[in-house]
Amino acid sequence: MQTEDLQKQIIKLNKIGIALTSEHDLDQLMFLIVSEARDYTNCDAGSLYIREDDNLIFMVSQNDTLARRTGVDDEQVMFKPFSIPLTRESVAGYTALTGEIINIEDAYLIPPEKDYKINREFDRRNNYRTKSIMSVPLIDNEGKVIGVLQLINALDDKQNVITFPKESENLVKSLSSQAAVAIKNAQLTKCLKKAHYDTIFRLSAAAEYRDLDTAQHIRRMSSYSGLIAQGMGFSKYDVEMIVNASPMHDVGKLGIPDSILLKPGKLTAEEFKIMESHTTMGSSILANSDSELMKKSELIAISHHEKFDGSGYPNKLTGEDIPIEGRVCALADVFDALSSPRCYKPAFPLEKVLSIIEEGRGTHFDPRVVDAFLDNLDDALEIKELYQDEEEMTGEEAPRDIKAN
Amino acid sequence: MQTEDLQKQIIKLNKIGIALTSEHDLDQLMFLIVSEARDYTNCDAGSLYIREDDNLIFMVSQNDTLARRTGVDDEQVMFKPFSIPLTRESVAGYTALTGEIINIEDAYLIPPEKDYKINREFDRRNNYRTKSIMSVPLIDNEGKVIGVLQLINALDDKQNVITFPKESENLVKSLSSQAAVAIKNAQLTKCLKKAHYDTIFRLSAAAEYRDLDTAQHIRRMSSYSGLIAQGMGFSKYDVEMIVNASPMHDVGKLGIPDSILLKPGKLTAEEFKIMESHTTMGSSILANSDSELMKKSELIAISHHEKFDGSGYPNKLTGEDIPIEGRVCALADVFDALSSPRCYKPAFPLEKVLSIIEEGRGTHFDPRVVDAFLDNLDDALEIKELYQDEEEMTGEEAPRDIKAN
Repeated sequence: MQTEDLQKQIIKLNKIGIALTSEHDLDQLMFLIVSEARDYTNCDAGSLYIREDDNLIFMVSQNDTLARRTGVDDEQVMFKPFSIPLTRESVAGYTALTGEIINIEDAYLIPPEKDYKINREFDRRNNYRTKSIMSVPLIDNEGKVIGVLQLINALDDKQNVITFPKESENLVKSLSSQAAVAIKNAQLTKCLKKAHYDTIFRLSAAAEYRDLDTAQHIRRMSSYSGLIAQGMGFSKYDVEMIVNASPMHDVGKLGIPDSILLKPGKLTAEEFKIMESHTTMGSSILANSDSELMKKSELIAISHHEKFDGSGYPNKLTGEDIPIEGRVCALADVFDALSSPRCYKPAFPLEKVLSIIEEGRGTHFDPRVVDAFLDNLDDALEIKELYQDEEEMTGEEAPRDIKAN
Repeated sequence: MQTEDLQKQIIKLNKIGIALTSEHDLDQLMFLIVSEARDYTNCDAGSLYIREDDNLIFMVSQNDTLARRTGVDDEQVMFKPFSIPLTRESVAGYTALTGEIINIEDAYLIPPEKDYKINREFDRRNNYRTKSIMSVPLIDNEGKVIGVLQLINALDDKQNVITFPKESENLVKSLSSQAAVAIKNAQLTKCLKKAHYDTIFRLSAAAEYRDLDTAQHIRRMSSYSGLIAQGMGFSKYDVEMIVNASPMHDVGKLGIPDSILLKPGKLTAEEFKIMESHTTMGSSILANSDSELMKKSELIAISHHEKFDGSGYPNKLTGEDIPIEGRVCALADVFDALSSPRCYKPAFPLEKVLSIIEEGRGTHFDPRVVDAFLDNLDDALEIKELYQDEEEMTGEEAPRDIKAN
């Protein structure tokens, strides 16, 4: 390679490295790794495996020829991840176990003395001819193989399949090590978020114990909120926000004494006033945070009991003056309350629940929120099914039962 | 540059890129960026600025000559971050505002028509001669300048100061863009952790409202725990864990009814049994999480009332059978309870608190924990001072006051 070429390669590789390390969404990152590597080596197809214990999980597959044939855009081709055992018998497995790059001229002519062979099933099923393969280990900064990148059918200028050039191996290796670090970083980000959301759901659910609600209420209410938000066209990020901010909507109830929170009969006017203050107390618990998520949860805490016609509390806001998150969560919360049994009432039949919601259209609820909800009612019912209350809570799972004894 | 050289450069740059993107601790990362860049360009000194609004914050400074002269190792030289205004008058400011690399032959011979000049104050104070400078913008993947890397006094083989070679500019640029992405990633990690910890402290503090404790109790108890852990030689990571897991030690109290939790007089044996169950309830709220932090908090919830001699609850564990985190938090919790006013008692004088702790050495408390605490008593008292209870809680900050009305 000429000096000038090499310098271009450096710049190109550098750009790829930056693109990869800037992508924090794990799924999108893995897709990007395959497409950047394919672009860089000019090849027809590629796939990516992630190592998990003694398996390789097949995460991404891209194939230009098949995409052209089916008319389906690459990015829309979705595969369900499946796994293969981590053995030397597959090319990917051999790559992962040895940490070596494997550069194969013709997949159908692999010498029989080699440990690995090709499974021709994919080719047969799809009428495809896998010929040249470059199989590259994804080695992280600690020298651990965390996955395998497979590039298939390198192409020349005339779109003929050729062997992957030997001299590109080092550059692809460099690319793949950047990819490995990027994957580890995205996994870390995912892990940190997951831990945070886990904390929110646990502590929010724990706070609800006093209210005799179950942890499942929090799950359902959060999922309904996410469903409505999605239906209203919220971005993926905003959906994630509402899903994980909404569980904290009632934390202000921690400030309401048992004598009011758990009173069996009707509350007096004064008691109701105190009960209402769970919205303002919730928002003050959550106030003044730097975190976007916490800011959303503050909004939701203060506004989830406002009503579209201004008859709600605490601020009697009307219409779009009520934060959209509050309008969404209001419906999610009420739907769950109506459709679940509570200590003072059985679960209402779906028909009755829906007629109450329809009735509240434009008075209690934002009509657009109602529409988004009803448009996705089937999914809502699936959520209800998924997060059912346990038949009866026992022992440590139902700490408030202790009181009943 | 020769082809072979260039290939070596690629490999080197790639290694640096990977090292940078693998470092998630922001402070260590910034230090690493300067040392890797200095190593790569072979220069005597370097510094790093991070842009924050209209300022550049001076974050890292390394200087081999001064380090040798003072005998202080580079890594030990700590500077308090200070900021300079973001204007074209400083070299760093000019670099940040224009996004251009500036390569200066002699800092003392900058032509007067240039916007920027050198502040010789540093040189005068330290008897140093800043000559050649390469000032490089840290440009992130969105093209935004997020900081500036300044390299000072390039050296030849004989340690003579030379000008930074023009042809290294592109490679340094490549390095610095990797550095920029790495910084953004580390900032994201920091931000995600901060948001998580914020949630923990808020929700844990909210849970304590019922107990008439203040949010400050959680802060203090967590900080005492961190202080003891540090004193016992826990790793930085483990200290961070205990600081952020300990706030959740009492979440199980959410399962204790007001009538017991807030009972003014002595609890009956049966009531006490229920009260004790806050440890097991806490651990079940926190159980079965994938998150390391949550696992620690589960351990702490279940074990912070165990006593070293086996007379604690719920499992009457003895000595080192009690998880170390539980032993640490036990002391932190008791110290705070004794040294703070509670509704049923005033704050005890320090002398009395210390004598109670001394008395508990080996019976209630792990002697090593007591030692670590007493060795760091001054810091503990500073924490106490820092997170004082408000004189009187009013309005929304003290929701349970509502009940008293």
